[in-house]
Amino acid sequence: MSGAYGRAGVNLAAAADAVGLIRELAEGASRPEVVEGVGGFAGLFRLGDGRLLAASADGVGTKVEVARLAGRLDTVGIDAVAMCANDVVTTGAEPLFFLDTLVVERLVPEQVAAIVAGVAEGCRRAGCALLGGETAEHPGHLAEGGLDVSGFCVGVVGEDRLLGPGRVRPGDVLVGVRSSGLHANGFSLVRRAVDGLDLGSTPEELGRPLADELLEPTLIYVPLIMAAAARELLHAAAHITGGGLPGNVPRALPEGLGAELDRTAWRPHEVFAFVARRADASDADMFETFNMGLGMVLVTPAEDADPVGALAAELGFEAAVVGRVTDEPGVRLR
Amino acid sequence: MSGAYGRAGVNLAAAADAVGLIRELAEGASRPEVVEGVGGFAGLFRLGDGRLLAASADGVGTKVEVARLAGRLDTVGIDAVAMCANDVVTTGAEPLFFLDTLVVERLVPEQVAAIVAGVAEGCRRAGCALLGGETAEHPGHLAEGGLDVSGFCVGVVGEDRLLGPGRVRPGDVLVGVRSSGLHANGFSLVRRAVDGLDLGSTPEELGRPLADELLEPTLIYVPLIMAAAARELLHAAAHITGGGLPGNVPRALPEGLGAELDRTAWRPHEVFAFVARRADASDADMFETFNMGLGMVLVTPAEDADPVGALAAELGFEAAVVGRVTDEPGVRLR
Repeated sequence: MSGAYGRAGVNLAAAADAVGLIRELAEGASRPEVVEGVGGFAGLFRLGDGRLLAASADGVGTKVEVARLAGRLDTVGIDAVAMCANDVVTTGAEPLFFLDTLVVERLVPEQVAAIVAGVAEGCRRAGCALLGGETAEHPGHLAEGGLDVSGFCVGVVGEDRLLGPGRVRPGDVLVGVRSSGLHANGFSLVRRAVDGLDLGSTPEELGRPLADELLEPTLIYVPLIMAAAARELLHAAAHITGGGLPGNVPRALPEGLGAELDRTAWRPHEVFAFVARRADASDADMFETFNMGLGMVLVTPAEDADPVGALAAELGFEAAVVGRVTDEPGVRLR
Repeated sequence: MSGAYGRAGVNLAAAADAVGLIRELAEGASRPEVVEGVGGFAGLFRLGDGRLLAASADGVGTKVEVARLAGRLDTVGIDAVAMCANDVVTTGAEPLFFLDTLVVERLVPEQVAAIVAGVAEGCRRAGCALLGGETAEHPGHLAEGGLDVSGFCVGVVGEDRLLGPGRVRPGDVLVGVRSSGLHANGFSLVRRAVDGLDLGSTPEELGRPLADELLEPTLIYVPLIMAAAARELLHAAAHITGGGLPGNVPRALPEGLGAELDRTAWRPHEVFAFVARRADASDADMFETFNMGLGMVLVTPAEDADPVGALAAELGFEAAVVGRVTDEPGVRLR
């Protein structure tokens, strides 16, 4: 329970304990088709015909609270799809469908419609179908007027096309793909940072209204990763969510290998400095909580970094070489 | 906004409005592989090899609040799996895997472990793998100490083995399978009914502690339906959740057909009368909110009702013929 994020009320030590317990319990409820021990961002299940299903569940967290306070619920659905589809696509799997789960303290059809419109837009961006969902009204269960938005995504990939730690070699290059801003992690800390500020105001250093900055939807990296994987340019990919670069890059690496990142190779968005200053968060805390400008880190053979960069530019993404894989475990930010 | 359930705070009219809006939005984010217009309890997606994926997302609702108040969180995970796997299996699909989504106001590892232990037990009962999940801590977002437990399940079925409305004919028989009690719907009304009662007390008419009765886990019907479907004894199945028999039986029937149910053919558990009396809920309200003793209704050809009943008994389920399919739309309870 240390660090700014712990102080903002999210207990990372308790979370780590829970994860250990959960892993043990999950192992007692498995099947032979489950692909174990891949670390990874999505669960993998063999279909028996040379293909794997990849599945991920995730939510928007308290970003939805900012959206509600700002009266703009039409983009958090994009975030929900992004959080899940970006996890799924790290395996090289094509996202097939998404289902949403909305929990509302009180059902306001216009609010639900706005959220699901965002979900539908997210699905279009990720190229997956909105296959269903669940809207549950739980009076008195959430804080008054409260909402929770989560969902899950299922994709499919050929076993021989699976991306992940098993492909990664020392000397591989890390290509960072620029995020669209805060994405949907660390919002307990963000909310502390903007406490008392008018969401309609425009802080000078941000150059646009606070609500626009905070609610900028999470970028969906599916088109880039699918295109790069189809050209066999990728070894692995890390979706940078809670835990930041130090927490997520290792999930794309095999045991025994690590990564060196060159902090001069990219510039975080202004909003990160803004949050750090206002929440009095250390540099280390910021890097362990936010994507700090890189929403996805691709692991490529050294010779494929340039083609990946070119492909990114062609598809409207910003990408740059930001580091490399080393044979020393851990992530070093220099 | 009428009926006891509406009065307990769940706005069914608003829900119906939202469902209409959601359907339209989902249609704008589809793919050719999606099997449309099947009504049904699960979304269906063609794998392209003669098989379909079936997916359902659902949650435990405010049953978790009763569990929390009773200090017994180890069974609501079973409910979460049951709600989703029972939906999936109505299509004839074998549940393959489940992912859970926990939202907690404050992360207490022991609470999370208890919930996930239930999820793992539910997965064992449903024969599916616990493939992953998400635990999110949202301080200040839920009511103090609050929890939300939901998840999703994915199954697979051959296109030629798909159950559903398309197979159902007038004269088909409805076989009701006895529920384990309240299951996980209508708990806003249940909580109103038990307001002021000690969950540890034993109401005479129930013959066991209130907490035991309310928290009895939702029965998982997967083994019965998989066995009956393998023997080709089934046309369709209706999972009786929110909306009760009148709301869910029609989801297993094609347009133009209806159902007649004989209320003397089964006896609801005592707990339903207990809730109705204490919440002052009408018979109609009760039937539109709860399963009233039948957690699953199977639609079988007339000649297969007896073999299905025998199979149910063999597998430890209680089943009885409770009605039949008619060519008059709507559900009639006599």
